[in-house]
Amino acid sequence: MSESNTEGRLSYREAGVDIAEAERFVSGIAQWVRQTHGPSVVHHPSGYAGLFRLDAAASMKDPMLAVTCDGVGTKLLVARETGRYKGLGQDLVAMSVNDLLPLAARPLLFLDYIATGKLDAAAMEQVVYGIATACRSTGCALLGGETAEMPGVYAPGDFDLAGFAVGLVDGVRLPDPKSMGEGDVVLGLPSTGIHSNGLSLARAALFERGGASVSDRPAPLAGSLGEELLKPTALYVQEVQRLLEHTPFKAAAHVTGGGLLGRAKQLLPEGLRMHLDHHSFTVPPIFELIAQAGGVCALEMASTFNMGLGFLVVLGSEQAHEVHQTLGEQWIAVGRLQSGERGVEFGDVSI
Amino acid sequence: MSESNTEGRLSYREAGVDIAEAERFVSGIAQWVRQTHGPSVVHHPSGYAGLFRLDAAASMKDPMLAVTCDGVGTKLLVARETGRYKGLGQDLVAMSVNDLLPLAARPLLFLDYIATGKLDAAAMEQVVYGIATACRSTGCALLGGETAEMPGVYAPGDFDLAGFAVGLVDGVRLPDPKSMGEGDVVLGLPSTGIHSNGLSLARAALFERGGASVSDRPAPLAGSLGEELLKPTALYVQEVQRLLEHTPFKAAAHVTGGGLLGRAKQLLPEGLRMHLDHHSFTVPPIFELIAQAGGVCALEMASTFNMGLGFLVVLGSEQAHEVHQTLGEQWIAVGRLQSGERGVEFGDVSI
Repeated sequence: MSESNTEGRLSYREAGVDIAEAERFVSGIAQWVRQTHGPSVVHHPSGYAGLFRLDAAASMKDPMLAVTCDGVGTKLLVARETGRYKGLGQDLVAMSVNDLLPLAARPLLFLDYIATGKLDAAAMEQVVYGIATACRSTGCALLGGETAEMPGVYAPGDFDLAGFAVGLVDGVRLPDPKSMGEGDVVLGLPSTGIHSNGLSLARAALFERGGASVSDRPAPLAGSLGEELLKPTALYVQEVQRLLEHTPFKAAAHVTGGGLLGRAKQLLPEGLRMHLDHHSFTVPPIFELIAQAGGVCALEMASTFNMGLGFLVVLGSEQAHEVHQTLGEQWIAVGRLQSGERGVEFGDVSI
Repeated sequence: MSESNTEGRLSYREAGVDIAEAERFVSGIAQWVRQTHGPSVVHHPSGYAGLFRLDAAASMKDPMLAVTCDGVGTKLLVARETGRYKGLGQDLVAMSVNDLLPLAARPLLFLDYIATGKLDAAAMEQVVYGIATACRSTGCALLGGETAEMPGVYAPGDFDLAGFAVGLVDGVRLPDPKSMGEGDVVLGLPSTGIHSNGLSLARAALFERGGASVSDRPAPLAGSLGEELLKPTALYVQEVQRLLEHTPFKAAAHVTGGGLLGRAKQLLPEGLRMHLDHHSFTVPPIFELIAQAGGVCALEMASTFNMGLGFLVVLGSEQAHEVHQTLGEQWIAVGRLQSGERGVEFGDVSI
């Protein structure tokens, strides 16, 4: 199309869209994408859609697709400020893929949407490398995506990410929250830190109110605030699959928006109350730093952030005991259900 | 969480995220979303993922998922300038769902990602209403999505949209481009106008170079430039399903990035040449206006825009004749394949 780049004529490139840079980017990431492709991925010359053979559904009594969609929120802004983009890929995969797990679904495939004002191929390659690595480690095929260059919608350094995941579950194995009852045990998996949630409040507290910068290293953090906030969201696929090999669970929560309290409460039917023991797990120090810098009260903290637990499951006490015996290194016993008004207690706060 | 909005303390809302407004938006759109839910949609109390029963796969020899992802590009900017958002929903659905059709896949479900700086519930409700209506008319369940409010990533009036579609196809019915040969016929479906592609070039030509505004009504347009550019992208699901009830096709193209020439050429294997008859269909007048205002040459035009054809299929001449006899009101015979150097001819231009 270079023919049109002659004097007085307008071409697509002059209108702000660089197709050649986009093509270099796509060919650069192709190898990582291919490495996520197991035997179920079908290649077809048309190129319009990703194809995935559903052989895993054949042995199921009632096969169902589970689908999720999410972004990484304002964690993007911390990445841009520090120039570190690689972890965002895992964040993006984790936000969608972990959301399949409360339905006991096995992730099959993932797609990403990347939108920029002007494609920064080096930065976005870091993102896609992170996406592909996270897909591999969760057994998910990275089966397509869209990289959109939109001058006028995004400023040159700006971008956004969205992810979509598809999983498969046998309907006869869906968790049944109605089976929960008094005496059931709550097991949890530790978070890596703030994950991809509450970053707007964290940034307002630490940087605006507290006057800190991303390169500050307040005690007791091992690294800088930027590094701490950018720790990638934990992927819980392997731990949950391993648990499901032992026993089904009654309900589960991926702790994201609404925080530990909101997500724990969402699990519960009427007439059940969850007590979370705040001595049973470690609250990462970043949360105390945020609370102090922003004067954020304990209730708001626990209603926004994961507070150290990224995933919860509810099991009967015998099953929980068995899981804790065999998988105790991963799963922590963090709480218990009692009869009472629907709600959650955690340390001094409750909802 | 209102308790935390006390003096000197920082809450999630003060950090720029209005959860209550988001909840009002979600409950406002719930009725439209539900209307897209057929009997395959399974409701589960967990709320983490959409669930879709795969009963349609049971009768297939080799069931495969087809998945696509796309946005609407800088068409967003025209919508924002004119305050008309409703058509963008159909654009978003069309961009992903039409991409399933070249693989002969039937759309099952759709998810949307909406990101804003500050949620404008009225504008985004228009978008979701358009998404839901387009999903209904294509038999697609709107099975979830994410509405993200990201102050700092997007300015208050800014937003972006991404869509994700899942379809189902029996592997034994995938189109086989290798079966194409000399004498095969190309049938096309008319576009509604510019669709969701090449808007950056169109805006640069019409508004920057040509000095026009969205409210101008140049002859021979029936309405304003804004109205013309915002005509929703055609949905081709029904026409393609009806064609597939008569006969399989050998290959198909959804005419988007790369324009009519690029997408037609992408269809072809080595050794085949496509002649598109530019007298066989009407080129919408918006394209002549863009070419004139921007001094855009014919090759660049046909390598960027659909030029009036939004979807192409290649059939054997007998099958094409039969389809044209029975479905001739929808499908136009627009071209033919010949042996020769791989490429496409259209009027005075070729690639």
